[in-house]
Amino acid sequence: MDTRAKHAVIEDRHASLGGRMKADEEHTLSIPSECGGNGEEQEFAHPADMADHLENLTLEKQVCALRHMAKEDAAEALAELDETTAVGVLENMDADVAAQIIAEMSPDDAADVLDELDEDHRNVLLDKLEREDSEELRNLLKFDPDSAAGVMNTEIILLEEDMSVDDAILHIRKEMEDNESPYYGYVVDQQDVLVGVLSLRNIMLSRPGALVGDILPSRNVISVPYDMDKGEVARLLSHYNFMAMPVVDREGHIMGIVTYDDIMDIIHEEASADMLGMVGADPDESVDTPWGESVRKRLPWLLVNLFNSAVSASIVYMFEGSIAQMAVLAVLMPMVANQAGNTGQQALAVMIRQLSNERFDSKKSWVAVLREAKIGLVTGLVMAVVASVGAGLFSHNAVLGCVMGGALLCDMMLGAIAGGSIPLVLRALGRDPAHASSIFLTTITDGAGFFIFLGLASLFLFN
Amino acid sequence: MDTRAKHAVIEDRHASLGGRMKADEEHTLSIPSECGGNGEEQEFAHPADMADHLENLTLEKQVCALRHMAKEDAAEALAELDETTAVGVLENMDADVAAQIIAEMSPDDAADVLDELDEDHRNVLLDKLEREDSEELRNLLKFDPDSAAGVMNTEIILLEEDMSVDDAILHIRKEMEDNESPYYGYVVDQQDVLVGVLSLRNIMLSRPGALVGDILPSRNVISVPYDMDKGEVARLLSHYNFMAMPVVDREGHIMGIVTYDDIMDIIHEEASADMLGMVGADPDESVDTPWGESVRKRLPWLLVNLFNSAVSASIVYMFEGSIAQMAVLAVLMPMVANQAGNTGQQALAVMIRQLSNERFDSKKSWVAVLREAKIGLVTGLVMAVVASVGAGLFSHNAVLGCVMGGALLCDMMLGAIAGGSIPLVLRALGRDPAHASSIFLTTITDGAGFFIFLGLASLFLFN
Repeated sequence: MDTRAKHAVIEDRHASLGGRMKADEEHTLSIPSECGGNGEEQEFAHPADMADHLENLTLEKQVCALRHMAKEDAAEALAELDETTAVGVLENMDADVAAQIIAEMSPDDAADVLDELDEDHRNVLLDKLEREDSEELRNLLKFDPDSAAGVMNTEIILLEEDMSVDDAILHIRKEMEDNESPYYGYVVDQQDVLVGVLSLRNIMLSRPGALVGDILPSRNVISVPYDMDKGEVARLLSHYNFMAMPVVDREGHIMGIVTYDDIMDIIHEEASADMLGMVGADPDESVDTPWGESVRKRLPWLLVNLFNSAVSASIVYMFEGSIAQMAVLAVLMPMVANQAGNTGQQALAVMIRQLSNERFDSKKSWVAVLREAKIGLVTGLVMAVVASVGAGLFSHNAVLGCVMGGALLCDMMLGAIAGGSIPLVLRALGRDPAHASSIFLTTITDGAGFFIFLGLASLFLFN
Repeated sequence: MDTRAKHAVIEDRHASLGGRMKADEEHTLSIPSECGGNGEEQEFAHPADMADHLENLTLEKQVCALRHMAKEDAAEALAELDETTAVGVLENMDADVAAQIIAEMSPDDAADVLDELDEDHRNVLLDKLEREDSEELRNLLKFDPDSAAGVMNTEIILLEEDMSVDDAILHIRKEMEDNESPYYGYVVDQQDVLVGVLSLRNIMLSRPGALVGDILPSRNVISVPYDMDKGEVARLLSHYNFMAMPVVDREGHIMGIVTYDDIMDIIHEEASADMLGMVGADPDESVDTPWGESVRKRLPWLLVNLFNSAVSASIVYMFEGSIAQMAVLAVLMPMVANQAGNTGQQALAVMIRQLSNERFDSKKSWVAVLREAKIGLVTGLVMAVVASVGAGLFSHNAVLGCVMGGALLCDMMLGAIAGGSIPLVLRALGRDPAHASSIFLTTITDGAGFFIFLGLASLFLFN
């Protein structure tokens, strides 16, 4: 790659996609009467609030309102709209107007929206942009949207290490005219390799006349490769409390930055993705997902669950004779399985949180499983006493009470250990530690619960 | 409250708690031989990495290493250590040294650590600090740790509206010497009421000689009250993509800011808290929670779960006669309940994500329940066909197959609707929409599943 050329492109980009997101001005929205509005100006403290307001209008009104707004305002609003709404608006808007709005968006926001459009539509819009902009966007669209490059912002302030601090300040001031407040200045060497990061504080406090390369606090730059998973980037940025994390290619050339605001969205997505994954829903699913798509994505796991519960059922079938003799076994049997399932899910949730929160530490993880086993033992003992007394009184059968208690204790311990271990096993198999973990867990706690309870009952009650 | 006095305190604070977190210098750690180390210097790119390294040492080595570090370095490391480790270190360290380290921490980090200590220990340390610092910390410790004030940072740059821009720049430059890069300048009027926020960009681009009050882009300030729940603050900051959110008292005086780095931690905590809450674990629980405490916190919900499953069991008991006649019912019965439970949990997870992600919108929420009902209907139909064929073939009884299919369809639809509605009902009752929702859900899907399946079986197979 000719890195000089890339450097030039990055600089140019500021010029061509200049006018974005002046998040610090007044934001007014008026829906003209031809869009069915009353033409009155409404004032918003922030474009995000304007977008919230737009989301409550009909599609026709949304399209009409955006068409009549100043292009920079429309670009701000479009970037803040939820995906489904933004796509709907772009698809139903005159392509020339849509392209003008996209030209005013920051490249990463523009790429996010374009990525959701179907290919034909996307190409029509890209072809209407200036060649430089469309090339830039096509480049961004090539990256995996779940990678660092897929979420990076390419508007960065590049400083050369042999630049004087005074020139750097002038350069930053000039960049600020077109852009938001910068987070950091990224210092590159002659080969455009990232060699350091300067905060505004570093620059403001340095001796005038010094060279940028000489005031670098460290040449130990923390950066991420362009193909790193965005969740991992989020974990690192949050670990270091950075405002932005530089993204580099294989040779260490800076490609862009991932900023804290995108990271906040990613952290939110990933953490609630675990909750969805755990019960076998698609980690990306939300109430805005078309319901047909949800059906398609959930069905496979529901089938797996059905198969798994058939396996548990076959264990019950082994003891059909005992149940026919003593139907009360069928009454108590689901209680054992349910209780152990709940215990296991608690262990599961704690372990999944651990794995998504911190760098993986094998020893710490197995200590955590041991911790769950201890919790399972003690809660199991308490529940066993309660349940055996209850079951004994209910059935007027002390032996059945003891069987109930014993089975509950064993199955709860097993549930706790399984709940703690399943995410580790999934992780070791190279899978998402959360995904469908609850389904695997209940298969174990149901199957074992039925087997232990009915087995003990057959042993002690029918011999 | 005398706001002038408060203003003075905020300014002073910069002076007294100055030397913190120079996140942009080299960080070296050497464990002296008297601490059992080899005295060699290890270099870290960031204090967070140094803290990671310290966390793997024994408590004695941790205490010894921190005691031998420069106080500012020790303060940085302590702020990055996980809670349990930080508390352990402080409790086992000479109180004078501990107080010196705390004096170097930023007030919000210091308050976080002190909050975890027992009261006696905390008071010993606070008494060793300078009076101003200890008063400041005691004030911070008074706030609910889950509120905006409980997580706010009090190191802010205050600008008066009748200050000139040039004075503002000098002031900011002076503040920068002691502090990290500032996020924004907060502009107050004569009564110290927050009237506007200036970004560095606003200040750098303004005409020299202008007054701060005249370059405010807007007097429409977005701020949060000091007692707002931290999760709500996180939602707002992430909605607006701010780097920091000002926290104000009832009269609009600025008290501090909540910064993006604390928000990232809060977003992570809150999103995974939903997953834990859903299954009846404590939302704050992690693998570092002492296991005895986990037992205490989980037991009540396990008891609720036991009681609930006893209710479901009593429904099975109503049909004891049918089961005694046809034990295969006990084989199939748990499959119906399990499948509906899984369907319901998928709906539950999607709905909880929705409620924690966006501003509450009642109409949208009920549309989402309708969406789940449709998904439940279609997945239920598919599963009903599969299960009825399977059950029919297995039992050589077509009627039993139909009963199985019918019960599965009804219970899965019910599970989907219940899963979608439970978080809304909990929310309407003023409770956390996630908490123990999965336990309530399985009570419904188990009870209804057993009733519908055994009821239909009794109706069609025994008459």
